[in-house]
Amino acid sequence: MSDKNNKVYIFDTTLRDGEQSPGATMNPQEKLEIARQLALLNVDVIEAGFPVSSKGDFEAVRTIAAEVQGPTICALARAIESDIKIAADALEPASKKRLHTFIATSPIHMEHKLKMSPAEVLKRAGDMVKYARTLVDEVEFSPEDAGRSDKNFLYEVIELAIANGATSINIPDTVGYTTPMEFGQLIKDIKLNVPNIDQAIISVHCHNDLGLATANSLAAVVNGARQVECTINGIGERAGNASLEELVMILKTRHDLGLFTDINSKQIIRTSKLVSNITGMFVQPNKAIVGANAFAHESGIHQDGMLKNNKTYEIMNPEDIGLLATQIPLGPRSGKHALKSRLEQLGFQNIKEDDLKNIYERFIRLADKKKRVDDRDLVSLATNQSLANESAATFELVHVQVTCGSGGLPTASVMLRDQRDKTNILKGAELGTGPVDAICKCIRRLTKAECTLIEFSVKSVTEGIDSLGEVFIRIQDDLQKGVYSGHAAKTDIILASAQAYLNAINRYYERKDTIKLNPQAAEALTP
Amino acid sequence: MSDKNNKVYIFDTTLRDGEQSPGATMNPQEKLEIARQLALLNVDVIEAGFPVSSKGDFEAVRTIAAEVQGPTICALARAIESDIKIAADALEPASKKRLHTFIATSPIHMEHKLKMSPAEVLKRAGDMVKYARTLVDEVEFSPEDAGRSDKNFLYEVIELAIANGATSINIPDTVGYTTPMEFGQLIKDIKLNVPNIDQAIISVHCHNDLGLATANSLAAVVNGARQVECTINGIGERAGNASLEELVMILKTRHDLGLFTDINSKQIIRTSKLVSNITGMFVQPNKAIVGANAFAHESGIHQDGMLKNNKTYEIMNPEDIGLLATQIPLGPRSGKHALKSRLEQLGFQNIKEDDLKNIYERFIRLADKKKRVDDRDLVSLATNQSLANESAATFELVHVQVTCGSGGLPTASVMLRDQRDKTNILKGAELGTGPVDAICKCIRRLTKAECTLIEFSVKSVTEGIDSLGEVFIRIQDDLQKGVYSGHAAKTDIILASAQAYLNAINRYYERKDTIKLNPQAAEALTP
Repeated sequence: MSDKNNKVYIFDTTLRDGEQSPGATMNPQEKLEIARQLALLNVDVIEAGFPVSSKGDFEAVRTIAAEVQGPTICALARAIESDIKIAADALEPASKKRLHTFIATSPIHMEHKLKMSPAEVLKRAGDMVKYARTLVDEVEFSPEDAGRSDKNFLYEVIELAIANGATSINIPDTVGYTTPMEFGQLIKDIKLNVPNIDQAIISVHCHNDLGLATANSLAAVVNGARQVECTINGIGERAGNASLEELVMILKTRHDLGLFTDINSKQIIRTSKLVSNITGMFVQPNKAIVGANAFAHESGIHQDGMLKNNKTYEIMNPEDIGLLATQIPLGPRSGKHALKSRLEQLGFQNIKEDDLKNIYERFIRLADKKKRVDDRDLVSLATNQSLANESAATFELVHVQVTCGSGGLPTASVMLRDQRDKTNILKGAELGTGPVDAICKCIRRLTKAECTLIEFSVKSVTEGIDSLGEVFIRIQDDLQKGVYSGHAAKTDIILASAQAYLNAINRYYERKDTIKLNPQAAEALTP
Repeated sequence: MSDKNNKVYIFDTTLRDGEQSPGATMNPQEKLEIARQLALLNVDVIEAGFPVSSKGDFEAVRTIAAEVQGPTICALARAIESDIKIAADALEPASKKRLHTFIATSPIHMEHKLKMSPAEVLKRAGDMVKYARTLVDEVEFSPEDAGRSDKNFLYEVIELAIANGATSINIPDTVGYTTPMEFGQLIKDIKLNVPNIDQAIISVHCHNDLGLATANSLAAVVNGARQVECTINGIGERAGNASLEELVMILKTRHDLGLFTDINSKQIIRTSKLVSNITGMFVQPNKAIVGANAFAHESGIHQDGMLKNNKTYEIMNPEDIGLLATQIPLGPRSGKHALKSRLEQLGFQNIKEDDLKNIYERFIRLADKKKRVDDRDLVSLATNQSLANESAATFELVHVQVTCGSGGLPTASVMLRDQRDKTNILKGAELGTGPVDAICKCIRRLTKAECTLIEFSVKSVTEGIDSLGEVFIRIQDDLQKGVYSGHAAKTDIILASAQAYLNAINRYYERKDTIKLNPQAAEALTP
């Protein structure tokens, strides 16, 4: 089992492909927070971003390269010299670094997107891998849309990439079209037909358009792939990527397959919650492994349906993914030390003293309001604190007041402080179709933001209506079309909505002009 | 392609296994609504429930058997004479009916759950299939936990079941443990080793604990199974079942596999939304086929990342699953006839005149408030109307008023009418940790319900903060532990919360004493 030939490397692309989920854009601070958690999860490689795509992405990769120890840090670059150079610059501070470059090899992509001949694609692939190896020691090469490529051409491109120094070859199922049988066969064929394949690790990158990403990845490792590209909660473009947690728990539960990963599975739940909090990509209750129902037999609902022998229905142990056995909840009399040690158990290892003080204050206010503060509340408080440490907000919320009801007109009064000129207090009142509409209209008028709300949702963090409500909001810039998210957790969902909306507006002001480049965008490939 | 040997029968168990999702309990009216939609979707079999489990479930199966034409109606029964009798009674009005009986065949289940020897299990299986065939023409038999059963014993049980008249044999992966390779092999082995297997259809029922339910079902049909048990959105116990929409779209997209279903795929999105609205089981944005992002290339967000040639990234056509091309939104000047014809296009075929009047009134109120009423708003209005046609509510909401804000105490005043005695007006005020808490505390006090809120969520139906907010609430009876859900959609989320909470309380009063039996509950098997 400890035979290193049987190790499957986990390449997490939550921060790159995951971030390409519509609306899941993250700022550098959020990406760093997730990268730190991925290091606790013990992934082998973190694909931190696509540095050429925006200033923010460059900064995110560079910050992660400088601050996150443990995993190899990877950056994506098209097969273009300038892309590769910028990616290498972003990676510069990392102790272990990898460059990931790609070019499409399927007829449809070469013809319609690249407008290049197969011979040109082949040459470009070889040249760019060679160039990348002059900058870093590890180079990964992906023939995009490999699943629809001509097999002989594919073998040729792979062989050349390896000959020019590629250390891993990533086979993507870019459009999520293949079946496990086919995809396993493709990996087997590559192993058989590429003469120098033993000099590189075969990686796979599967999309979930038909719901087969995890099964395709599994078929690949059974047939000789030794790296899987995946994301937390399976987020990513369209229907997303293979879920890290599913693949890891398959190999752990089915150890009879003879493969293993180095993932610390006890960090799975915390990582899943952090990614869902930060991106606003909710996890459905019936999601395998990390869904709220995954380990529930009508969870505490029909206790009579519960069996004495867990083994009859449970193939995994809830503790294995970090679902803690019931702990005594903290209450208003719990001290700061007790809070700190519980947070450490939950994975928040390096909380700064100032942050702890803020979390503790909010914890006491919450404990005064509700009877029991449980671990999910604490994770929400701590996550929101680390997100609050962003660059100074443009507007601060001073006061909100709302009246609404079945008879009257929903009315909000709002007072804001403009941080660019602290004496500048803005105030006003608005009517709306409901209280949230009234608040947002008022804030939008006071801040003069030109944006449209595109998503609004609230979820209770724990059971009990007196619990924290987590509000998630996404707005879109009316002119630049950039999307900004804001979230906030409070027992009062109206206050939380006001704060979440203002957080989104603050981001809008902070990054108004950054539009990111999509790595699959067609026009942009000309070097 | 039209060779009937290549048809894969779709057996939908949303109303039975899907309903076993924690908290997804449905009442007979809701089940009927879903069954009607499943008939539009053109599923072959609807497993409508487990009639012995509760009076409500018996009633649901019987109502569906009487009112839904097209699909075969199926009911579940343990391998116990009384279960089978009750199931047959419930099915009586159906024109096409099927009895589905099951018994566990794995060593762990026979020993720990059934406390029966293999010989006893074998005899029981044969006897009960024979008995069931005296009552109905189609009998389906499931060896529960087949994946962990001794293969030779499994062959023996299957052979006997078929000899005694079983018309379909369903192989469940009850705990979601198998891999596609193994599961495909199991089906192949059954075909090779059960002498009379050609006299029955092989069905499969896969659970998603490791994220492999769809892939396992696919492997099964490729290896000779011709019926798949699945659910809309993949809901079901724990991590759920194989997703109907995924399997159907795999066979449609990969028609080169040579298999087909009779599903009308254009009804997929509407069915998905209806099930998610009724059960409160949200669909994550990255869910394959039916997730909000499934067809989005950073949907309308980065238009610059969009490609001219859709074929480069899209393997399915959004229209194929019923995602309509943009239509002119209706507005305040649209007439009732325009509304009706749009609703018909959206799948609401038989709206009664009274209901249409109510929907139209609410449509006009909504159109007055927001600029454009689009198809998603209409689906929400129409769905909520059909759900409002439940048996008379115990309490009616007369008036709600709320004030809250950063300074003060969140306060709600509520007035209710007790429908059991219309002169009985209840009113009161409460403080809370937030406005929703205040409302719910007040309603709970006025109605004297003994229950706890276990889930609260709000989602905007469309973009725009002035849009409808859909509130979903689940409460749990403090004594009987039954779970009741309530939902409501309004532009004012505070009003919607009050109505949703009161809807849940009304259900609590209506069905206070019904606790359902779980088909996998151990103690209950002794006849």
